[in-house]
Amino acid sequence: MIHLTPVEETLSELIAAEDAVELVRFIETLSPPETARGISRLTAEAQLKLFFLLSPEDAADVIEDIPEAQAADLVEDMPSEQAAAIMEELSSDHLVDVLGEMDADVSQAILAKMGTEDAKEARMMLEYAPDCAGGLMISEFLVYKTDNTIQDVLDDLQTNRSEYVDYHVQYFYVVDREEKLAGVLRIHDLLFPANETLLTQVMIPEPLSVSDKASLGELEDFFEDHHLFGVPVVDAERRLVGVVLPQDIEEAVNKRKTINFLRLSGIIGGEEFRTMPLFSRSGRRLSWLSMNIVLNIIAASVIAMYQDTLAAVITLAVFLPMVSDMSGCSGNQAAAVSMRELSLGLVRPKELLWVLVKEAKIGIINGLVLGLLLGGVAYLWKGNPWLGIVIGGALAANTLVSVTLGGMLPLLLKRLKIDPALVSSPLLTTATDMCGFFFVLSFATAVLPKLGGM
Amino acid sequence: MIHLTPVEETLSELIAAEDAVELVRFIETLSPPETARGISRLTAEAQLKLFFLLSPEDAADVIEDIPEAQAADLVEDMPSEQAAAIMEELSSDHLVDVLGEMDADVSQAILAKMGTEDAKEARMMLEYAPDCAGGLMISEFLVYKTDNTIQDVLDDLQTNRSEYVDYHVQYFYVVDREEKLAGVLRIHDLLFPANETLLTQVMIPEPLSVSDKASLGELEDFFEDHHLFGVPVVDAERRLVGVVLPQDIEEAVNKRKTINFLRLSGIIGGEEFRTMPLFSRSGRRLSWLSMNIVLNIIAASVIAMYQDTLAAVITLAVFLPMVSDMSGCSGNQAAAVSMRELSLGLVRPKELLWVLVKEAKIGIINGLVLGLLLGGVAYLWKGNPWLGIVIGGALAANTLVSVTLGGMLPLLLKRLKIDPALVSSPLLTTATDMCGFFFVLSFATAVLPKLGGM
Repeated sequence: MIHLTPVEETLSELIAAEDAVELVRFIETLSPPETARGISRLTAEAQLKLFFLLSPEDAADVIEDIPEAQAADLVEDMPSEQAAAIMEELSSDHLVDVLGEMDADVSQAILAKMGTEDAKEARMMLEYAPDCAGGLMISEFLVYKTDNTIQDVLDDLQTNRSEYVDYHVQYFYVVDREEKLAGVLRIHDLLFPANETLLTQVMIPEPLSVSDKASLGELEDFFEDHHLFGVPVVDAERRLVGVVLPQDIEEAVNKRKTINFLRLSGIIGGEEFRTMPLFSRSGRRLSWLSMNIVLNIIAASVIAMYQDTLAAVITLAVFLPMVSDMSGCSGNQAAAVSMRELSLGLVRPKELLWVLVKEAKIGIINGLVLGLLLGGVAYLWKGNPWLGIVIGGALAANTLVSVTLGGMLPLLLKRLKIDPALVSSPLLTTATDMCGFFFVLSFATAVLPKLGGM
Repeated sequence: MIHLTPVEETLSELIAAEDAVELVRFIETLSPPETARGISRLTAEAQLKLFFLLSPEDAADVIEDIPEAQAADLVEDMPSEQAAAIMEELSSDHLVDVLGEMDADVSQAILAKMGTEDAKEARMMLEYAPDCAGGLMISEFLVYKTDNTIQDVLDDLQTNRSEYVDYHVQYFYVVDREEKLAGVLRIHDLLFPANETLLTQVMIPEPLSVSDKASLGELEDFFEDHHLFGVPVVDAERRLVGVVLPQDIEEAVNKRKTINFLRLSGIIGGEEFRTMPLFSRSGRRLSWLSMNIVLNIIAASVIAMYQDTLAAVITLAVFLPMVSDMSGCSGNQAAAVSMRELSLGLVRPKELLWVLVKEAKIGIINGLVLGLLLGGVAYLWKGNPWLGIVIGGALAANTLVSVTLGGMLPLLLKRLKIDPALVSSPLLTTATDMCGFFFVLSFATAVLPKLGGM
């Protein structure tokens, strides 16, 4: 849909006119990104007023269209009664995601104002790590008792039809008196037996389930192995506590990939949107850059140690940034392959030697090719074969160092339980810069008389 | 599960012993990553022999555990009869994914040997772009005619129970005589009406559907707006051609993020695994590095133009790589925020000015902070305030250039329909390197007498 005036302008006007009916009608014509973009660009005042004009149901629909970090910021600014009324309309996993982005005191204040049943479920789910089954499960599923009959289920479905619209009704779960998972029924198991049949007679006993502590990786593996539309989650006593859906697992994997991408690019501490306050954006970026400036000073100190060689052959200064940049690129390629293989389980953190051998072969080939290229350029430029040998040799040697180090570093960091996406690139750049500067300047020092003054 | 001997060794032994029964039993104890890792490390000969020992069903289970690029390589090496028998056991979307990774002549040869119905479906799906609804849909869904009754559906479900086990039976679709989508039934709509009721009396008419040409972004928006367990896909004539599931959309988004991550890190042309042949891995990495070496030579030419200034103040050579590296980091942060906002639709490609203003503010703040830091270090090191001013000023100016350029570049590339993940980082690095070298060396040239010989 194409809007001739920016969405935020139309929104502003409708909010200023306090025209709630037209406001809801307009928002319904927007795609989720349009809604998110339009609302994020309103003033804080207009945002607050907007949510006062909307009913809790409509407000919840809007909240679901907005990235969680932004949604949490919006809800945090509301009075807690209003926030609670809106949050009660969210699905359980969405609710927990948004609450999880808030400060603990604000989320507790909102939970205190929510209906007891919803709040109890949310509190339980908030106690789990966000990336385990307990944090990813939903609480909208249908559960019956071992002494229920098919007729009981049909009656319940008939009675609560409207409430169950949003429920995951592919499977029905059966629990015993202690709430322990006893079996599962597929909905079509209800189609054929007589209505007085006990659920225990038609259910699949001892069904597949996952622990509430199961990690995201284990859940990924589970759905790779079993093409199901959901799996029951049980606690240590085998009590049924929730259901995990495959799309929620994929979504969590997506979220982890986004955080990895941002971290690799130096955006730390979660999402950054340009509608966030200037000083928090600038401060978060600076905290990462400050670490980098220290690492850069360490790396550059190698150059400072060789000032005499540099003064004698000033041409080397042209090649220093090239050797360090090219080696950084080669190292990052190897690191990316390692991170990818680690995430797929195709390499284990302890297999350093296997990676070393695999990468050393690439390092030798690519080092020779790149060294010949850049060494050739250096030789042609100044007509001095020794300059070519120094530059080409340094790049070749440093390519070998970079790819082997780049390949092994993510495995080492994983063993140390440090996130490779956060530190692998700065550490690798510093190490390969230092080695690169050292190779160029020490090789040049060794053959200094042959290089003359350039 | 912990295996004391490496998985590949046990596999090798069982394959050598041609013990098919024990082989299947062993593979069943493995997690998908263990299977993928173990098989990828076998010799090509052992891999082929393994698939001869397995039944097509067991082989298909193994293929589903392996990343698609690897699976395609394995299947390509098999005789096409055997490949076809295995491929027939895969689900339709998995089949299309694996065929899509193969050379067209090999996939056509395999399709020619497959059952006509499966092959016809796969050919139709292969004609779609992999990232649109037609390429992402499944063909395992249940469809009935407008003149069918509830009893017809119940009879069909009863008769074909075993075949439908893997089907997506949350919804039933109803088509008219021309195969056009007429309505949808949820499975619980079957529970209550009399068996002689016509489906048209209980179905939801004119149900939600998506075009077979719908893009991944549109499908994401669809499932954000509608919490459904699947949506029917129709062609231009509203004929029902497939069903798209939300988890398959999330999986496709995941795949796109992986490709982006690899491209950003300089791994182009798809996945690289270390079990792939050495020369194809090295060649693909080199093709990207060669482009970078050219860009590096262009950037370094700025330094070459200022050799006289460098010769007079050799200390500058220490700071050149630092200024260029720091600016590269600042620019990449801004580029990452733009890529993320673009993918969420929070910024539109034409909003260059908005991004410019937002980033310029950050550039000024961060430029001043970083400039003071590095300028201070330069001053303290050599005791010359002018050196501090030159270095600090250059870093401040270049930080402003980098963040504004970094923020705008992905938007510009998007408008030119070029993938930002592929070229944004090399282009940005080259531009900020050139500017950084220029600022340091031209500022230094301007105040050369004050810098003395350092």
